[in-house]
Amino acid sequence: MNNVLAVDIGGTQFRVGLFDDQGRRLVIWEGATSRGGGREWMLKQLLEQCATLRKQSDYPVKACGISFGGPVDFSQQKVSSVHTPGWAGFPLSAWVRENLGVPCLLDNDANAGALGEFRFGAGRGTQSLVYITLSTGVGSGLILDGKVYRGRDSLAGEIGHLPLAPSGTVCSCGAVGCLETVCSGSAIARTAQEWAARRPEAVTRMLELSGSPESITAKIVVEAASEGDLAADSIIREAARWLARALLTLIRVVNPDKIVLGGGVAQAGKVLLDPIHETLQALGSPSISYSTEIVIAELGSHSPLYGAVALALESA
Amino acid sequence: MNNVLAVDIGGTQFRVGLFDDQGRRLVIWEGATSRGGGREWMLKQLLEQCATLRKQSDYPVKACGISFGGPVDFSQQKVSSVHTPGWAGFPLSAWVRENLGVPCLLDNDANAGALGEFRFGAGRGTQSLVYITLSTGVGSGLILDGKVYRGRDSLAGEIGHLPLAPSGTVCSCGAVGCLETVCSGSAIARTAQEWAARRPEAVTRMLELSGSPESITAKIVVEAASEGDLAADSIIREAARWLARALLTLIRVVNPDKIVLGGGVAQAGKVLLDPIHETLQALGSPSISYSTEIVIAELGSHSPLYGAVALALESA
Repeated sequence: MNNVLAVDIGGTQFRVGLFDDQGRRLVIWEGATSRGGGREWMLKQLLEQCATLRKQSDYPVKACGISFGGPVDFSQQKVSSVHTPGWAGFPLSAWVRENLGVPCLLDNDANAGALGEFRFGAGRGTQSLVYITLSTGVGSGLILDGKVYRGRDSLAGEIGHLPLAPSGTVCSCGAVGCLETVCSGSAIARTAQEWAARRPEAVTRMLELSGSPESITAKIVVEAASEGDLAADSIIREAARWLARALLTLIRVVNPDKIVLGGGVAQAGKVLLDPIHETLQALGSPSISYSTEIVIAELGSHSPLYGAVALALESA
Repeated sequence: MNNVLAVDIGGTQFRVGLFDDQGRRLVIWEGATSRGGGREWMLKQLLEQCATLRKQSDYPVKACGISFGGPVDFSQQKVSSVHTPGWAGFPLSAWVRENLGVPCLLDNDANAGALGEFRFGAGRGTQSLVYITLSTGVGSGLILDGKVYRGRDSLAGEIGHLPLAPSGTVCSCGAVGCLETVCSGSAIARTAQEWAARRPEAVTRMLELSGSPESITAKIVVEAASEGDLAADSIIREAARWLARALLTLIRVVNPDKIVLGGGVAQAGKVLLDPIHETLQALGSPSISYSTEIVIAELGSHSPLYGAVALALESA
């Protein structure tokens, strides 16, 4: 038996795990990402954690896979993120090969999440799936005919920027009406904060959980909605109605076996799925029936990490 | 050298062609489809035309490909259209093998159009494309990584039913707001007919070309717009603006090398492409640049027939 290392580098958290060659977890280490630390800090952490994990098993590590929370040039195996200091153009796979002495494959977190669910989660047994990450932003990864599909500019699955909403909100990308402006974690938190400022009496539970209006996060909205709080439920429902339009769009264009909802917002579970199904029922055609299933990610916040396992096994 | 037979069965026209094994046209026969004739009439025509064409070349026919204007079960090689009398469940490929004595492959016209442009038209040299048919209805066929992509229920590319338009128009599919209700040939003709009823003075050119308000077709609107008629141009522009939203959606989800616009409405050419590019410019993100090209079908109304050639070559 051989082991593999899996790494998930995110904007707020990072994870390093040791897995066997069947994708079974031996141990996962998790920590907060230093906002100011940049690349150097992260690489140092990576070396240390990998060294620590390697000592915990008698079996050798034969490969490494990495999920990176930002744009990646897969063909060059380089990070192309310009938002994170020092990472742009960094050949992370080559660095791992040099410093850890094992082959490595790198992809972005949306593709890694898709791969993780496909190989080890809700997508086992499917031929095609779309994995949607509902987090600070909204993105997706596509598996078609059993393989990650990237598109011409590696932009396939950029559903956060589908031109869906007639709202006037300007997206971080500079366009208006992107899906991300109405159903991302940021959008959900912003809506709740606006409610708190205007009608604090309606959001007492969320204020209890957060302490102050500006501390309300999407996680708190999800938590309150799951407890049955009406204001939180209404905010999640509004996001779900927009998301349902994006899901019907994906069904019409890609018609995958499954659509898997991942990321923090998907932890809402039934509170999110019920209004999605209601909207799909209302929007859909009575004469065009499809069998694409919409499910919550089985691996929770670990979908990209398991994707890194799949990448490691592929590189070995 | 060997020849192949290509057949394009459409709701208004059908075509039978003889091609060589490089996809070069030897001869194409074209006729009107009998509305009332149903399956028996069409099969009789097919036998006759194929027999006639076979006599026109000394080289043997080694295979046949068929594009069918309606749903097809590709894996079973059967027509699954329920709108055309007698066709539902008909094993057309097996019938051809039996009656013409050559292997045969059958697909629907959207996939065949995509394949035709991919192999012999605007998509040569690409790895992925979406072929959009803008005809009475709106549909599309996807070529991803060099192969037709069908999706779980063979519904991939059903972009006519993207939930895009907030208009109240009910689609033929029973849903509201489908793309098809705002940019199909039927929608364009209906809009022009409404103008003609309400403001005949604005549509004099279209009335001249058609003879009467109810005889205005999308073809006439396209013709008038190409001549510079303002009313017709405005109607095409409105359709183009909705179509641009669908194109941006396809770019975000699939990010293909090319999007190829086919079908009768695409004959509008520049009159259609200019407002598409204007809308894409306005809707798009300043920070997410893509290199997907949007072009008019090179094979014009023959894209599905050339797709049938590709199917024949595949089956041989």
